[in-house]
Amino acid sequence: MKIKILGHYTTKVGELWDKGLEDLLHEAIEGSLKNSDVNPDKIEAVYVANKASGQLNSQLHLNALASEYFEHYPPAMRVEGACASGGLAMIAAEQALLAGHYQTVLVVGVEKMTDISVAQTTEALSLAADQIRENGSTFPALYALLAEAHMKKYGTTREQLSATAVKNHAFAVNNPLAQYRKEISIELVNESAVIASPLRLFDCSPISDGASAVVLTSKEVKNKPEIAGFGHAQDSLDLAGRKSLTSLAATIKAGKQAYSRAGVQPGDIQAAEVHDCFTIAEILAIEDLGWFKKGEGGKATLEGETGKDGKIIINSSGGLKAFGHPIGATGVKQIAFLANKLEKGVFNLVLAHNLGGSGATAVVHILKNS
Amino acid sequence: MKIKILGHYTTKVGELWDKGLEDLLHEAIEGSLKNSDVNPDKIEAVYVANKASGQLNSQLHLNALASEYFEHYPPAMRVEGACASGGLAMIAAEQALLAGHYQTVLVVGVEKMTDISVAQTTEALSLAADQIRENGSTFPALYALLAEAHMKKYGTTREQLSATAVKNHAFAVNNPLAQYRKEISIELVNESAVIASPLRLFDCSPISDGASAVVLTSKEVKNKPEIAGFGHAQDSLDLAGRKSLTSLAATIKAGKQAYSRAGVQPGDIQAAEVHDCFTIAEILAIEDLGWFKKGEGGKATLEGETGKDGKIIINSSGGLKAFGHPIGATGVKQIAFLANKLEKGVFNLVLAHNLGGSGATAVVHILKNS
Repeated sequence: MKIKILGHYTTKVGELWDKGLEDLLHEAIEGSLKNSDVNPDKIEAVYVANKASGQLNSQLHLNALASEYFEHYPPAMRVEGACASGGLAMIAAEQALLAGHYQTVLVVGVEKMTDISVAQTTEALSLAADQIRENGSTFPALYALLAEAHMKKYGTTREQLSATAVKNHAFAVNNPLAQYRKEISIELVNESAVIASPLRLFDCSPISDGASAVVLTSKEVKNKPEIAGFGHAQDSLDLAGRKSLTSLAATIKAGKQAYSRAGVQPGDIQAAEVHDCFTIAEILAIEDLGWFKKGEGGKATLEGETGKDGKIIINSSGGLKAFGHPIGATGVKQIAFLANKLEKGVFNLVLAHNLGGSGATAVVHILKNS
Repeated sequence: MKIKILGHYTTKVGELWDKGLEDLLHEAIEGSLKNSDVNPDKIEAVYVANKASGQLNSQLHLNALASEYFEHYPPAMRVEGACASGGLAMIAAEQALLAGHYQTVLVVGVEKMTDISVAQTTEALSLAADQIRENGSTFPALYALLAEAHMKKYGTTREQLSATAVKNHAFAVNNPLAQYRKEISIELVNESAVIASPLRLFDCSPISDGASAVVLTSKEVKNKPEIAGFGHAQDSLDLAGRKSLTSLAATIKAGKQAYSRAGVQPGDIQAAEVHDCFTIAEILAIEDLGWFKKGEGGKATLEGETGKDGKIIINSSGGLKAFGHPIGATGVKQIAFLANKLEKGVFNLVLAHNLGGSGATAVVHILKNS
C-alpha cells in the first residue's frame, strides 16, 4: 500500500496577532482540503499535532476542535511529542491508513504562541519538571551545551554557526509564508546578543504562530508525492543520559530506519528540511543524517555545500530559523513545503527531519515523486 | 490479524501524595511487563495517554519519559483527547500493530492530579478558552445540563442518579486498587452538597492520581484476551452544537462501529466499564450503548439491572466514580480491569466506553476470550 499526499496548506507564519488558535487550525484544514480538491466529507479521520496549547491557550482536546470543522465530525486524535509533534502525528495517520481503517485522512499541526508573554512561553516550552533533569534550563541553554561540545571536539566555529542562519534567512526571502524574509550577514549574527553562550540571538529560531495541514490517501492516485518511508526513534530526555553530545542518536537511528524503509541512501536525497531550532541543530542534523562526515557540517555550511548550489539543499523554506517554528505545525509544514517542491518537479527525492526536546524524539520522513 | 492483551497493571488509584508523575508512569510500565512476562527489550513502541500534565505537572513530552524507562529507548508517542486519551492511545497502538510496523507494544495512561490545588486542577480540566464555548463552565456544570434535560424529558429521578453511585461504591469495596472502598447509601448521595444542580457531591467522580498499562501483541498467543473491535467518534465540543442533550451521539456512533467490527450485538455483552464521570453519564451510556431503551437507564439502575445480579454488569471495578478517575489512565485501566476478568473466566465478552469533553470524543472497545 502506498501513501500519497493529495494536498497541503500552510498559513503565514509569524506573530499573527489577529488570529487565534482555532482560526489557524481551521484555516489550515480548509486550505489543505481546497488544495487537495477533496470534499470535506471524504475525510475519514483527523490527526492534530500540537505541543502546548494547554499552557499557551488554555485549551486541550484539539482533536475535538479539529473535528468540529467538519459537518460529519470525523474521528480525531491529538498527538504530542514536544517539537516533534508534527512528525509523530504524520506517523499516527500513516499507521491508521496502513492498518486499513481509513483511506483518506488529514493531518494538521498548529501552535498559537504569542497569546502569552515571551517569558511565559519560554517557561512552557522548557518543561522538565523532574529535579534530576535540566531543571530551569531553557532550550537555548541545552543547545548551547551541544554547540560548545561540537566546537570543542571538531573546531566548529562562530562563523560556521552564523553561516547556517545566513543561508536560511536568504532562502526565506523567496518564501512568502516565512516569518523573516530578510537577508542577514555573518557579521550581524556574530555580533547579535548572547542568549546562552555560544548561541546568540540569530542562532535561535523564533516564537511563531502558524498551522499546516496535509491530506493523505492510500487510494491509488497519480502524480502526487508519495511517503516513501519514515523513521522514529527516541533517546534520553536528559542530556546527562546521552552517550554523546556531538551527535543526536535518535536522529541517526530514525534516519537509518527511514532510508531503509524507503530503500534509498543518504546520497540519493536532493533536498531536506531539517530541524534547525538552533544553528547547531542543523549542523548536527546534516552530519547525523549521513550527508557530511561528523565534525564537517559547519565547514560544509560555510562553504555553501548546503545552499542553493550545494551538494544537498538544506532548509530551502528558510527552516525553523527563518520560515519560523510554530511548534506543533513545524513537522507538518516541512512535509507540506517539500510536497510542493516535488509537485513542481524541483526535486524528486527529499527528506524531512523533526526533533523533540533537544533530540529525545526524532522523526524522519522521506518523500518522493512516484 | 488478531490483537491480544499479553498483560496489564494498574497502580493504586487515589490521592497518592508520595508518588510523582514519573513514579506512576514507570510503576505501571514495570507492572505490565511483569504481568505479561515480557522482557522489556521486546517492547517495540510505547503509546502514552495523558490529558493535562503540562498544566498539572509542568511536564510535556511524556513519550520521552516513558521511552526512558527502557534501555533501548523504543519509539513512543503521546496521545491526548481530554478524558478519552486512554481509549485513543489504545487505538493508535492497535493501528500501529495492524499496520505491521510492530508486533508488541505497550500502552500506558497516567495522570498525577494532586500536585496542585483542587481549584487549579478544576480550571485545567475545564479548558474551553474560546468565547463561543462553555467559557467558565466546569465539567459538573456541563453534565448538570445533561442531567437536567434527561430528568425533564424522561422523568429520571434523584434516587435513580443516586442508585448509580451506590452501586459503583458497592462494587469498589471488592477492588483493592479503588480510591473509595466504602459503601454509601441513597440517602447519603441525596443529601450530599450540591455541586452543580441537580448534581451533588456523590454524583461526581473524584480527582485521582494513578496509572495503568497494557501490553498488546499481534503475535499468535493462546489464552489471552483479544481486542475484538473498537469504535471512535466525535461530536460538537460545545453542547450548544449538539442535536440532543439526552443522548451522546458520539457514544452511539462509536458503539455501533465497535459492535460491527466485533460482529456482536449489544445483548451479547456480559459486562462493561462505562465512563461514569458523573452518575448521569452512566445512565446516558447504558442507554446509548443499546442495553436499555432511551429514558429507562435510571429506572434499570435503581432496579438493580446493572448490578452484580443484573442483566448486564456495569462498572464492576467501581467505575470512575469509586475506582477513581486518573484521567489519562482511565481508558487504559478500564481495559486492564476487563482483561483480568476475561483471564479469570468471570466474563467472556465485555465492553469499555471512554469519553472526552462531555461527549465530544467517544471510544468504545470490545474485548473477548478467544
